[in-house]
Amino acid sequence: MSKKNKVSVWEEPLEDFCTQALRKMDVPEEDACITAKVLVAADKRGINSHGVARLRRYINGLRSGMMIPQPDVQTVTETPTTALIDAGGGLGQPTSHRVMEQAIRKAKELGVGFATVRNSNHYGIAGYYAMMALEHDCIGISMTNASPLVTPTFGRDAILGTNPIAVAAPAGEEPAFVLDMATSTVPRGKLEVYKRLEKELPLGWATDETGASSTDTERVLKNLNQHLGGGLLPLGGAGELLRGYKGYGLSMLVDVLCAVLPGAAYADLVYPKDEEGNPLPSAIGHFFGAWRVDAFRPVDEFEAAMDDLQQRLKNTPKAEGQNRIYIPGEKEHEESLRSEREGIHINAKVAADLGAIGEELGVEYTL
Amino acid sequence: MSKKNKVSVWEEPLEDFCTQALRKMDVPEEDACITAKVLVAADKRGINSHGVARLRRYINGLRSGMMIPQPDVQTVTETPTTALIDAGGGLGQPTSHRVMEQAIRKAKELGVGFATVRNSNHYGIAGYYAMMALEHDCIGISMTNASPLVTPTFGRDAILGTNPIAVAAPAGEEPAFVLDMATSTVPRGKLEVYKRLEKELPLGWATDETGASSTDTERVLKNLNQHLGGGLLPLGGAGELLRGYKGYGLSMLVDVLCAVLPGAAYADLVYPKDEEGNPLPSAIGHFFGAWRVDAFRPVDEFEAAMDDLQQRLKNTPKAEGQNRIYIPGEKEHEESLRSEREGIHINAKVAADLGAIGEELGVEYTL
Repeated sequence: MSKKNKVSVWEEPLEDFCTQALRKMDVPEEDACITAKVLVAADKRGINSHGVARLRRYINGLRSGMMIPQPDVQTVTETPTTALIDAGGGLGQPTSHRVMEQAIRKAKELGVGFATVRNSNHYGIAGYYAMMALEHDCIGISMTNASPLVTPTFGRDAILGTNPIAVAAPAGEEPAFVLDMATSTVPRGKLEVYKRLEKELPLGWATDETGASSTDTERVLKNLNQHLGGGLLPLGGAGELLRGYKGYGLSMLVDVLCAVLPGAAYADLVYPKDEEGNPLPSAIGHFFGAWRVDAFRPVDEFEAAMDDLQQRLKNTPKAEGQNRIYIPGEKEHEESLRSEREGIHINAKVAADLGAIGEELGVEYTL
Repeated sequence: MSKKNKVSVWEEPLEDFCTQALRKMDVPEEDACITAKVLVAADKRGINSHGVARLRRYINGLRSGMMIPQPDVQTVTETPTTALIDAGGGLGQPTSHRVMEQAIRKAKELGVGFATVRNSNHYGIAGYYAMMALEHDCIGISMTNASPLVTPTFGRDAILGTNPIAVAAPAGEEPAFVLDMATSTVPRGKLEVYKRLEKELPLGWATDETGASSTDTERVLKNLNQHLGGGLLPLGGAGELLRGYKGYGLSMLVDVLCAVLPGAAYADLVYPKDEEGNPLPSAIGHFFGAWRVDAFRPVDEFEAAMDDLQQRLKNTPKAEGQNRIYIPGEKEHEESLRSEREGIHINAKVAADLGAIGEELGVEYTL
């Protein structure tokens, strides 16, 4: 983000503002707090695509009835190590946060815990929930399915989500390992950035309406928005040469665990529309889990080995022209520390829109 | 494989031969049977790189003492849902098979079960163990770390394994979902195939000694074999453009779960050598798990949704020039059915080497 286009805001007032805005839409206090916290955590880590920029969509969803402010959340099935929760069409964050806590509790009692959620909505960054396991000396996992934007290998149309996978594991002196990745090569937001910059897409990111990898940013985005064919490519790109079927397989795996397992919508059934084309509840699903480290190995031994593994990777010789090897989550961790010192960077347009939301809802906007 | 270079063999005599060869190396009957079964299952599915072609390495490993024929296998820790097993430096397959059975038993009792293994060896195809869960109406997962052949993003040297991830989920009428993928773009064996065919490597597969993606097949393989720098690229290729750091992150995740968690060797500590350069025990680790489907949702509902998801993917429009979309594991499933009808295809050179092993060990080779 160039300096001109960004503003710097502090974590607490930004969270407060989002909380108050959601409160105005009849979201209960605790649910609003959790949702605000998860959104702001994304911006704090530099993942602005999943941060407060989403607040507008949540407000709209709550307004249209696509998202339920006070959902009837139900436990569908539960065993000592598992649970299946129906989120009642509410915001994704509050139920996801509680369900991940439940998985962690089960892991603390019995070694491992897993929980799936159906009938939910966008839950923010997958990594947030995986990272909740860290302070409990657990390894955490979190996945969600999502709006169909990704084409399967040899397919023409977008039928799968960017379906992210996040896993977090604690370390000792080093920052935690936090893998948080969409299973597509890039998200749609990246294409939008290229459009603004008037740049051509690299081959391997997205396809046109014939299903071939394309550099035509405008065309790909127009097709995607109007469902004219083509879409984002799975990690590994088009066809088999660079093994795009692995990214496609991972994306389908996320649909299996997040949707087939709990009975949520999958593939092109996600984010359905009614006969007039109005959006219906997204009906997406999530998958959460925790493994207690000391169910396998003493925590101090595990953490010392995590530190050593990280140091081995970081200290290995660099490719020509490179001077640093990163651990998954390291860049986001550093951005998070910077945000604490200097304030969270958000896009100026997003800040302006927050101002507009504040005016609409009668929430004071003084960040 | 071209017809000239392959021979067709039947499953049962091939398994018997491998079993008898391993018996001659003092591997107990049951362990030899399991190992033979896992090796042959790979060839049956068309994954010849992990099939009976590996028998020679196992025989050599057992001969040199790198692999222990009758290992002292120990349970290090156990909880109702987890276990950590020390494989005692034995063959990977027998312990892996029993440990996956243990994970499935735990899942049947309590909903989920996970087990990790340390001090093990090559265990064959990851998918074999994940698929063991299918007949128990469980979702299975299996991972292993491996010999350092893969470079981290921005790194010059091979310090991570091809570290595969396999997940299998049952379906109803359709074949099971079986994702079984190395986290590198391609395995070393694929480079060897290109060398034999005198073909240039596609960019995105491997790097030369500077750490840049290279098309020079001979050079890359020579460097890899002599540890001169460069190596296989993680899924997503070199640098950040096509998101190679996601493949690198997945590879590191496998090292965390298969090695840091059980206390096995990781990164460049895998397959160590002594001061004279002689191979020491590989000390690799594995990770196994099972989720019982009906701990979340009735099996018939799950399987019906799996069928529907598969059909949606297969029936979606195809990219220009393509006529079929595959489900992960579908090609291997079809090859497996073909192998049952017509015999398993193995490479003629591998068949000749099996003959040589038979002569060396005094095992009759009449496939």
